[in-house]
Amino acid sequence: MLQITTQRTTTPKAKPDESNLGFGVHYTDHMLIIDHDEEQGWHDARIVPYQPLELDPAAMVFHYAMESFEGLKAYRTPDGSIQLFRPDKNAQRMINTNHRMCLPSLPVEDFVQAVKAIVSFDQDWVPHAEGTSLYIRPFVIATEPHLGVRTSRTHKFIIVCSPVGAYYSTGINPVKIFVEDEYTRACPGGTGFTKCGGNYAASLISQVKAHELGYEQTLWLDGVEHKYVEEVGSMNCFFKIDGTVYTAPTVGTVLPGVTRMSCIELLKHWGIPVSEERLPIADVMKASHDGKLEEVFGTGTAAVISPVGELRYEGDVAHINNGEIGEVTHKLYNTLTGIQWGKLPDELGWTVKVD
Amino acid sequence: MLQITTQRTTTPKAKPDESNLGFGVHYTDHMLIIDHDEEQGWHDARIVPYQPLELDPAAMVFHYAMESFEGLKAYRTPDGSIQLFRPDKNAQRMINTNHRMCLPSLPVEDFVQAVKAIVSFDQDWVPHAEGTSLYIRPFVIATEPHLGVRTSRTHKFIIVCSPVGAYYSTGINPVKIFVEDEYTRACPGGTGFTKCGGNYAASLISQVKAHELGYEQTLWLDGVEHKYVEEVGSMNCFFKIDGTVYTAPTVGTVLPGVTRMSCIELLKHWGIPVSEERLPIADVMKASHDGKLEEVFGTGTAAVISPVGELRYEGDVAHINNGEIGEVTHKLYNTLTGIQWGKLPDELGWTVKVD
Repeated sequence: MLQITTQRTTTPKAKPDESNLGFGVHYTDHMLIIDHDEEQGWHDARIVPYQPLELDPAAMVFHYAMESFEGLKAYRTPDGSIQLFRPDKNAQRMINTNHRMCLPSLPVEDFVQAVKAIVSFDQDWVPHAEGTSLYIRPFVIATEPHLGVRTSRTHKFIIVCSPVGAYYSTGINPVKIFVEDEYTRACPGGTGFTKCGGNYAASLISQVKAHELGYEQTLWLDGVEHKYVEEVGSMNCFFKIDGTVYTAPTVGTVLPGVTRMSCIELLKHWGIPVSEERLPIADVMKASHDGKLEEVFGTGTAAVISPVGELRYEGDVAHINNGEIGEVTHKLYNTLTGIQWGKLPDELGWTVKVD
Repeated sequence: MLQITTQRTTTPKAKPDESNLGFGVHYTDHMLIIDHDEEQGWHDARIVPYQPLELDPAAMVFHYAMESFEGLKAYRTPDGSIQLFRPDKNAQRMINTNHRMCLPSLPVEDFVQAVKAIVSFDQDWVPHAEGTSLYIRPFVIATEPHLGVRTSRTHKFIIVCSPVGAYYSTGINPVKIFVEDEYTRACPGGTGFTKCGGNYAASLISQVKAHELGYEQTLWLDGVEHKYVEEVGSMNCFFKIDGTVYTAPTVGTVLPGVTRMSCIELLKHWGIPVSEERLPIADVMKASHDGKLEEVFGTGTAAVISPVGELRYEGDVAHINNGEIGEVTHKLYNTLTGIQWGKLPDELGWTVKVD
């Protein structure tokens, strides 16, 4: 159980226009910080006014990317209360990330307590408009000033929060996806299953390339053979082919998404077959040409569900469901967002109230 | 040509004891900063007192590891002057890194000018004792506060400098190396050829494992087959087998080290055969058992040349040259350090004087 001190800002900011929040643009009045060092472990948990971090320019986070993060949201329900969606899953994933990255972790219960504490303190920042939420960004950075390559002796765990609209400003219209066959995101023995910063820095070049070619996101193939589908942009990816829904197994190169996990559970609950076998991109393209590629969608906390309308792989293009959102995709979207925003009963016990 | 303003500290620090500098522990009185944004490009180049960086907690460097770095040294010569070793190669490599990471770069001449400027300003910090030098750390970070994954609109290029002793406190005694067969450092299409932070964060877990097993460094194998030797720790790696010196080709997964390049040029100059064909670890172990593995060494700016005395690969152990530094290793070390510290004539034009 963390002891968290609080210091309220004397200069609260004006709340942004809820009809035009964007994603990760506005930040709340406060932030939560917990320090870590070898002697004391985690200590001095505090909520303070949102403010710049002061770090030595030799702090290891600037040189060796010793950093990890999580992303989750707080949702405003119809009765005005605030709830989280499976925050324990984020807590556990951050532990897994930090283990791979040699960073220290908070126990699950302390992570969830910290999230609840900052959301509760900044509760007026959880927006009310349709489709909006408070995006919560916990992250860990290595702060020791040292240029030799080794683990750090000091760290900070920080949470900042950002009121957000829908991730895609164009709504849930299907996106066009470019299948990346040159750059790779992850390979076995690497960090693909983690939310470490390095995975995202390495992905930007493909995003730029996709945009230049007129596509919105990249679909990553496996790093060894460039043969099997893995993730799309920073989301997990699902393919409905001839009645079965396929998604890449989380065997080390794929992020174990909380939305991914929830979709699989819902699909199974609905009696729709789900396969986590590796799926060759060639099979996806063939299914498309055979008229059996029924739906494709990405899943992630930011966008929840993002339908895919077009896939381009080398010279070949697959058009999916006439560029319209598919039936299963839509049902997953409605169910997940219904549970998250408290508009549907939470039969699976996924939501957690913030006092 | 950069216009660099300067502001001298009013509280200079005491110089550290040159007999016990360590590596990356002490920092000079000043740092160089150049800002970058989309509108102005690089601007406001300035030398200021060494001080903490103030960054928004949502700055992209903290979340998506949008950062790159270089490492080079300034050497004190016998006549008291100061020189750099092939700084244009670092400048060009940083351009290559930044291109892969979607970060902006300084032109080669501006990079070299900036390095010379900060070294000249802090020239009293270039140590005089045998084997010491001033380690120079240029780095680029993405500073825009934004949580969506995309390229940043603002950046900083920074140089900090650290007076250093020998990288290994135990001198150039041969090190024991553990061949990593579980974790991977790089795969084709990834960032292995760059000095991005993410490569180093991802490597720590193997360093910890090697230490726990009683080894000092990790030898990385290729990420696809775990079959070919690539790098050792954060150095390039050379193997002398039956008269020929092998080192991994820089085909995208291996850092193109400046010391590596210089060693290859020297070896060829001396008429020693060099092969940049991919070398299976199995061939290395077999050569050892056949008595043909004559020398193994790592190369890098920090350690210059680091002889390897023992390799462990799965259950097999190779002892190299009775745990003593080999003849070619020693000659490379003496030649390179001789040129770097100005004790040998620089016939190849590798050094650059700092005024």
